[in-house]
Amino acid sequence: MPEPVVLLVEDEPLVLLVAQDALEAGGYKVLPVQISSEALGVVDSRIGELSGLVTDIRLPGGPDGWEIARHAREFRPDLPVVYTTADSAADWPVKGVPNSVVVQKPYAGAQLLTAISTLMTTADTNRTS
Amino acid sequence: MPEPVVLLVEDEPLVLLVAQDALEAGGYKVLPVQISSEALGVVDSRIGELSGLVTDIRLPGGPDGWEIARHAREFRPDLPVVYTTADSAADWPVKGVPNSVVVQKPYAGAQLLTAISTLMTTADTNRTS
Amino acid sequence: MPEPVVLLVEDEPLVLLVAQDALEAGGYKVLPVQISSEALGVVDSRIGELSGLVTDIRLPGGPDGWEIARHAREFRPDLPVVYTTADSAADWPVKGVPNSVVVQKPYAGAQLLTAISTLMTTADTNRTS
Amino acid sequence: MPEPVVLLVEDEPLVLLVAQDALEAGGYKVLPVQISSEALGVVDSRIGELSGLVTDIRLPGGPDGWEIARHAREFRPDLPVVYTTADSAADWPVKGVPNSVVVQKPYAGAQLLTAISTLMTTADTNRTS
Amino acid sequence: MPEPVVLLVEDEPLVLLVAQDALEAGGYKVLPVQISSEALGVVDSRIGELSGLVTDIRLPGGPDGWEIARHAREFRPDLPVVYTTADSAADWPVKGVPNSVVVQKPYAGAQLLTAISTLMTTADTNRTS
Amino acid sequence: MPEPVVLLVEDEPLVLLVAQDALEAGGYKVLPVQISSEALGVVDSRIGELSGLVTDIRLPGGPDGWEIARHAREFRPDLPVVYTTADSAADWPVKGVPNSVVVQKPYAGAQLLTAISTLMTTADTNRTS
Repeated sequence: MPEPVVLLVEDEPLVLLVAQDALEAGGYKVLPVQISSEALGVVDSRIGELSGLVTDIRLPGGPDGWEIARHAREFRPDLPVVYTTADSAADWPVKGVPNSVVVQKPYAGAQLLTAISTLMTTADTNRTS
Repeated sequence: MPEPVVLLVEDEPLVLLVAQDALEAGGYKVLPVQISSEALGVVDSRIGELSGLVTDIRLPGGPDGWEIARHAREFRPDLPVVYTTADSAADWPVKGVPNSVVVQKPYAGAQLLTAISTLMTTADTNRTS
Repeated sequence: MPEPVVLLVEDEPLVLLVAQDALEAGGYKVLPVQISSEALGVVDSRIGELSGLVTDIRLPGGPDGWEIARHAREFRPDLPVVYTTADSAADWPVKGVPNSVVVQKPYAGAQLLTAISTLMTTADTNRTS
Repeated sequence: MPEPVVLLVEDEPLVLLVAQDALEAGGYKVLPVQISSEALGVVDSRIGELSGLVTDIRLPGGPDGWEIARHAREFRPDLPVVYTTADSAADWPVKGVPNSVVVQKPYAGAQLLTAISTLMTTADTNRTS
Repeated sequence: MPEPVVLLVEDEPLVLLVAQDALEAGGYKVLPVQISSEALGVVDSRIGELSGLVTDIRLPGGPDGWEIARHAREFRPDLPVVYTTADSAADWPVKGVPNSVVVQKPYAGAQLLTAISTLMTTADTNRTS
Repeated sequence: MPEPVVLLVEDEPLVLLVAQDALEAGGYKVLPVQISSEALGVVDSRIGELSGLVTDIRLPGGPDGWEIARHAREFRPDLPVVYTTADSAADWPVKGVPNSVVVQKPYAGAQLLTAISTLMTTADTNRTS
């Protein structure tokens, strides 16, 4: 059975590692990306492979997590989205996409895993009707 | 007891009437607006009075319903938002705000009333914690 | 604005009247049916018009409410379904369809109205993604 | 069809009237009580008749709304509970009962009606399993 | 502390292995069954031991997953049910039981684990009232 | 990245071990407490560090789990609370705090992990608005 693929965008290497480990231990294949402009490229070229997006909000340089999520949702309206953040959660009611969640940093790996898994099952179940 | 105020943005006069009647029958005071640029003005000048927003999405001229809702949420992150639309619902996963709902046209008055009332109670209850 | 149509199946005339009044007062057009075999006919011939189904479970003669709902869902997988019943609720976990609710008799009109309206908005909102 | 009965506890006469009107218009029979010690008596003597409780929190004299709700839940663990309040919502996470909601004053009648109706349908549906 | 038991029905050996590993790693005892008629037998003889059911939908020979779930629910109306499927999800709105979810194949082990755990906690919590 | 801290109250050493292992494997730091009066002390002195509470209900000697949870909620109204119990779940509708869940013993470690993680993400997401 191939593994569902999650795009993981996080510029801090240690946090990226924790998140990637947790998602892989849960049976996901992870596409880790540290540079946000690259994340847009992955969305453009590999959207068909993706089952979910986990993205940090504040990212140096290019687009932020809010933009990456909206970009991905244009191609995949039901893509599960988890935002992770230390200080930008207050913008979620304005800049977040519907049916997404916020996980505050510092987080436990199980929070990411539970959040993305729950959103994927909800999307799977809604898609049937 | 003063009545909670709902900003209602709808350019079609007959639909506006149905919606306003339903909301007033349910005990809300309605601020009806037909011109979308005017809706932004009401948000700017009277945001403190508002308990909810019901907005059509496609509006002639000025900003659309997506923009009005985001503008209102900047000032009031927990403002209940109901979008009404005949043909623009497909953009909700990209352009909608979190914790909002879509009511497809044609709708029954009870749908608006139930939707905005449910969102208001959820906001009241979440605000406590 | 045309009114959304609800198929209402109820063999007791007085209960039918209470339910029909409540739904019409909320802005729905009601197709009232007292004979359950007739309900299947309405589903077959007018499914495209329907926005929701409210059905009693125990019905004399023909199919019961469980069957009517499953029949309607075959054509319209996202059709909102409200079951009303005095004594058959215990079969819901086995015979009910997903994303439906049970309203116990005797009920208040507002329960029907709130239940069908909530399910319709959820279906409208999910359909966007 | 007899009407489901809601115990309504509110010491302000005008607010009581608005609430009672809204609930009765929705098809509920209302037991209005203005004195909180009397509310406990109604719970003790007529709990079997009740389908729901709507209670103000701050009440002069006797027990407050938090106590009334806990008292009623001892006899009826699945009783729907709606708290109404102008200034005591902040205590809900400590003093409220599970599966209850808070409606802030001033409220629209439709908020009460939608809140109690939604909780009753959820209780009806959960009771089946 | 004995482990809660999940009946796992899956005819593909490799998928069964992934699912069993994930559930066992999460602390469940798994009753793995590859032949669907045997699944009915386990339901009949050991229903009292079961805390949840995870079942593939399309199964060679005997009954399919829809039937196994309905059969189990007749004895245990609140049994958590997770359907897994590559191509039969579209029938869920007609053939699924209420309060169940669909997990699309290919899935990550964490999806199964999160889905069954969430349903079990909801059932535990609802059972109290 | 520091780990979110969960206060875990459980007087049975073996159950404590299973729970602690599950939470730590999910990336939480656990404060294990076997004596309930000590749990109140931890709440008093370290509430600012806590991200969640998992507590057994029936505890020898001092306060029970219902009291510990209410005490913690006084300081942290949005603290996620998971109750674990073999025989006291029936009191949850009266003695539990809102937005909490019950996990029946015997449980799988994944149930605790999923329950606390889901509540934490909900709290994180609601806190934004």
